[in-house]
Amino acid sequence: MSIGIIRVFTTDEHSIINAHGEKINEFSGINCLNKCIPDQPKGIYDDESEEIAIPKIIEVAKKFEKNKEVKGIAISCAADPALKAVRQEVSIPVVGAGSCASYMAKIFSDKIGVLTIADEVPEVMENMLGDSLVAWEKPKNIHNTADLLKDGAIEESLQSVRKLIEKGSEVIVFACTGYVTIGFSDIVEKELNIKVIDPVVAEGHALSFILRGA
Amino acid sequence: MSIGIIRVFTTDEHSIINAHGEKINEFSGINCLNKCIPDQPKGIYDDESEEIAIPKIIEVAKKFEKNKEVKGIAISCAADPALKAVRQEVSIPVVGAGSCASYMAKIFSDKIGVLTIADEVPEVMENMLGDSLVAWEKPKNIHNTADLLKDGAIEESLQSVRKLIEKGSEVIVFACTGYVTIGFSDIVEKELNIKVIDPVVAEGHALSFILRGA
Repeated sequence: MSIGIIRVFTTDEHSIINAHGEKINEFSGINCLNKCIPDQPKGIYDDESEEIAIPKIIEVAKKFEKNKEVKGIAISCAADPALKAVRQEVSIPVVGAGSCASYMAKIFSDKIGVLTIADEVPEVMENMLGDSLVAWEKPKNIHNTADLLKDGAIEESLQSVRKLIEKGSEVIVFACTGYVTIGFSDIVEKELNIKVIDPVVAEGHALSFILRGA
Repeated sequence: MSIGIIRVFTTDEHSIINAHGEKINEFSGINCLNKCIPDQPKGIYDDESEEIAIPKIIEVAKKFEKNKEVKGIAISCAADPALKAVRQEVSIPVVGAGSCASYMAKIFSDKIGVLTIADEVPEVMENMLGDSLVAWEKPKNIHNTADLLKDGAIEESLQSVRKLIEKGSEVIVFACTGYVTIGFSDIVEKELNIKVIDPVVAEGHALSFILRGA
């Protein structure tokens, strides 16, 4: 039994393609297959790039479904791109990192702080968190996933989490899976003693719930 | 590491007290300690019985927290009684079966059917499910948990799930943990081929997510 992880950008670096699946496997013990969408090296960063990604995400999902070993699919992006559309096209369970992270956070708290890389919280997360969203922050000098790899990014991001805590957040949710790539949840929990909902771990854990026994 | 399971009724039958904890342990591998609230053999069935239960639930939660092995608490009832109050009194993570089941369901679908034993959906579940609640049903001749043990209860309950499916439900949530006790999720998934969110399994799985590494 495997799950299919859809990465919503394009790369041929295997270590990057497989990063989310490896994290999920480590946490939940599920075997993961990982695929990128084609021709979008910059991923999804605005409405237009999301729109052109949708048919590609559906296509990757359909390919996963043809493999009878694949029992569930995760769209591994906090904005849940194409989630509803993919559910209409395949018959196996499909989750999005954004809804997994948001609802897992709501299970534990009604005071949730969101760490973004954009000048807003992804609309789907804002809707799902509702009144439980007490604050959101974007670290200084961080504008895209790549910025998270630069010098000083971790300290700036920690500074943002400190602000979220000051504003009453009891649980932190990452609104970008890029924070997962830099191992930021472990750093936050160790440095600031607050629970973090990692969207990638959350999507794997949710699928492991529904697929147990499949 | 253990989690504390609060049963919101009174019994001295160990097999009943431990039933939820055993189910969680079987699914998620977490060690569970189980405690009942005192002097409420009929449990929580209306506003008054919920109100008198609240200080008792807090008391049991505080006892659990004194045991340093206990790293999280589940209030094992679909109505999430005393959830906010308990969170104010203890410093370890606390979840309620109702919110765990509702949000886990929302991760997988926006067409959710609820199977109750009462003439309404618990208010907290109704609020959490929002627009995703497409239908709810109460089986004929079922008015309380004890009725689920009577002859014909399983067939009547299956009939209600069939109606939920006819009304467009893609995922079924139990609004009473009594359905867990009779092993009804396995029966539904086998007979009707629809995914069931079992509130007890959901609370254990949610706690296992937040406590990994604790």
